[in-house]
Amino acid sequence: MVYSVIMAGGIGSRFWPRSREVHPKQFLNVLGEDTLLQRTFARLEPLVPAERTYVVTHARYENLTQVQLPQLAPSRVLGEPISRNTAPCIAYAAIKLRALDPEAIMVVLPADHLIRHSKRFRKVLEVAIRTARKPGALVTIGIQPTHPATGYGYVQYYTGGGVKEKVYPVRTFAEKPDVATAERFLDSGDFLWNSGIFVWRADTILDKMSKHLTSTWEAFERVVPHLNTPEEPTAIREAYYRSARISVDYGVMEHADDVYVVPGTFGWSDIGDWQAVYDLSTKNRHGNVLKGNVIVHDSSRCLVQSEARLVALVGLHDTVVVDTNDALLICHKDSTQQVKHVVEYLHAHQLKEFV
Amino acid sequence: MVYSVIMAGGIGSRFWPRSREVHPKQFLNVLGEDTLLQRTFARLEPLVPAERTYVVTHARYENLTQVQLPQLAPSRVLGEPISRNTAPCIAYAAIKLRALDPEAIMVVLPADHLIRHSKRFRKVLEVAIRTARKPGALVTIGIQPTHPATGYGYVQYYTGGGVKEKVYPVRTFAEKPDVATAERFLDSGDFLWNSGIFVWRADTILDKMSKHLTSTWEAFERVVPHLNTPEEPTAIREAYYRSARISVDYGVMEHADDVYVVPGTFGWSDIGDWQAVYDLSTKNRHGNVLKGNVIVHDSSRCLVQSEARLVALVGLHDTVVVDTNDALLICHKDSTQQVKHVVEYLHAHQLKEFV
Repeated sequence: MVYSVIMAGGIGSRFWPRSREVHPKQFLNVLGEDTLLQRTFARLEPLVPAERTYVVTHARYENLTQVQLPQLAPSRVLGEPISRNTAPCIAYAAIKLRALDPEAIMVVLPADHLIRHSKRFRKVLEVAIRTARKPGALVTIGIQPTHPATGYGYVQYYTGGGVKEKVYPVRTFAEKPDVATAERFLDSGDFLWNSGIFVWRADTILDKMSKHLTSTWEAFERVVPHLNTPEEPTAIREAYYRSARISVDYGVMEHADDVYVVPGTFGWSDIGDWQAVYDLSTKNRHGNVLKGNVIVHDSSRCLVQSEARLVALVGLHDTVVVDTNDALLICHKDSTQQVKHVVEYLHAHQLKEFV
Repeated sequence: MVYSVIMAGGIGSRFWPRSREVHPKQFLNVLGEDTLLQRTFARLEPLVPAERTYVVTHARYENLTQVQLPQLAPSRVLGEPISRNTAPCIAYAAIKLRALDPEAIMVVLPADHLIRHSKRFRKVLEVAIRTARKPGALVTIGIQPTHPATGYGYVQYYTGGGVKEKVYPVRTFAEKPDVATAERFLDSGDFLWNSGIFVWRADTILDKMSKHLTSTWEAFERVVPHLNTPEEPTAIREAYYRSARISVDYGVMEHADDVYVVPGTFGWSDIGDWQAVYDLSTKNRHGNVLKGNVIVHDSSRCLVQSEARLVALVGLHDTVVVDTNDALLICHKDSTQQVKHVVEYLHAHQLKEFV
């Protein structure tokens, strides 16, 4: 059977001040009514019903997850004792699913991405799932690049060696490139954006971990006898503390054989910062995106989100304004990647209440 | 004797959101600890003691005035029933002072100007006062222009005809010019900024009003019998409603003979908008002027005033941010004159609570 594993543990500090440690990006409705987590679930549901959907998140977000996804039985919300990037998160989900169904196929995806064309996305997933049925195969979803982005990792594939239509063996994974490299990637024509969306059998990813990420694998195999017993939380806690902080991309994918990529074009964005929110939003005739009580005079191409207060813009252009109860961000649209520095500053200066 | 008449009735809508109808500019500490009204009083005190200082303001600001200037006896705070520009305000003060002292000399000045060099200012005033002792003489203080400002009126004087050192007969008053005209004024060398600071005998200004602003003069002469009686407020109310909304500049000065100007250079500014506040403030090494809890990343030449909230700037330049409890202004430094349009909008849309 096919199961989905939604990874919802991140913080999203580039969405400060709306994203906070107590309320990170995937739980926000940065683009409208539903939150990104709810959209991610709804997008998958036609393919994978609630009964086979799991969410892995930091323990502190378990309640938030259940409030936003009441369809999920509490047993299918897996709480992480500490954040250790994606490898331990995937190991945890994999041992749970393997115990439940030895032939379980996992669709692993981040909770905080946006996908405009859900149907096309599901069609791509179906191809990936078919490919992942084969034991030993790791499948990743690659995004056809639209511009030389420097904020994403890339996947290079063997154009010649299409296993079957729309599935290609992966040649290399490349980390976030500089502009020149990114342009070279685009010109070469065989590079895709690494979406961080994966499909594989639970036993396959665990087998690959045993080879390439042994310590993490050992740590989680120790948990197996305690699964679904009162000891599970303690065993999991131990496993997380024994595991290195590493992503499945660097820890496994880059070293493994039998890795495939399915290219997709379905209006994907990881909504990495406020600039992306602006780009994805509907603008008024002055190019402004206004939410809340906002007065605009001679201003254009601005994104304004106000929770309560009256906000007046005068002669302002290309600026992001995010107004919350206790904190206010004003940021040039070209600098939205820098917002994380504010959060770093807050940490460094013990201003925890604003983090 | 010499009396001072501080005009404190204005609204200062270009200082929204800090200036409100309930708390206008002259009652704000836009530049530090003391409010502009308090600074104006303190600046004059060495020349004119509290016992001879009067404040004319809208009735709704009488309490605010007494709170900020406890030195003033309530009888020396004159409340205006409605705002009618400066002519009625001056007529009211003039009949009060004439009744008190037939030879009273009035120093009339706005409450919301900034003057950096108080001593030099008082020296200029002393010259003006000497000149104003002569019955029939109207004296205005002119500011040596430092740039072709379009926000001020101008006074042209007869360079040749210096009555005595530093006093010149006025040739014409000119309203706020366009840039070209302002530059012509500066080149000609005989134009000064009209500071709106006047010195004259109470009986002299009333005599001039009887010639050039008859209706206002008549309206206030009717009040005279009721001065300092329980009927004064009612009589004053009637006089204000009978008076036209007109400034003493347009109503009297532009038409009168025997008008003199004393040029001064004492670091004058009418602090017309937030840009002026920025220009007059001490900057940090990035050219920022920050008040309140502000985090700055890669931002320069900004003015930020926050009352309570944490404000974070990222990649922002030449911008004014004024954050209050219920309203927030974000304005490019070149557009601060436009802030009044926000207040007009609020009026037009019945958003009274923000005005």
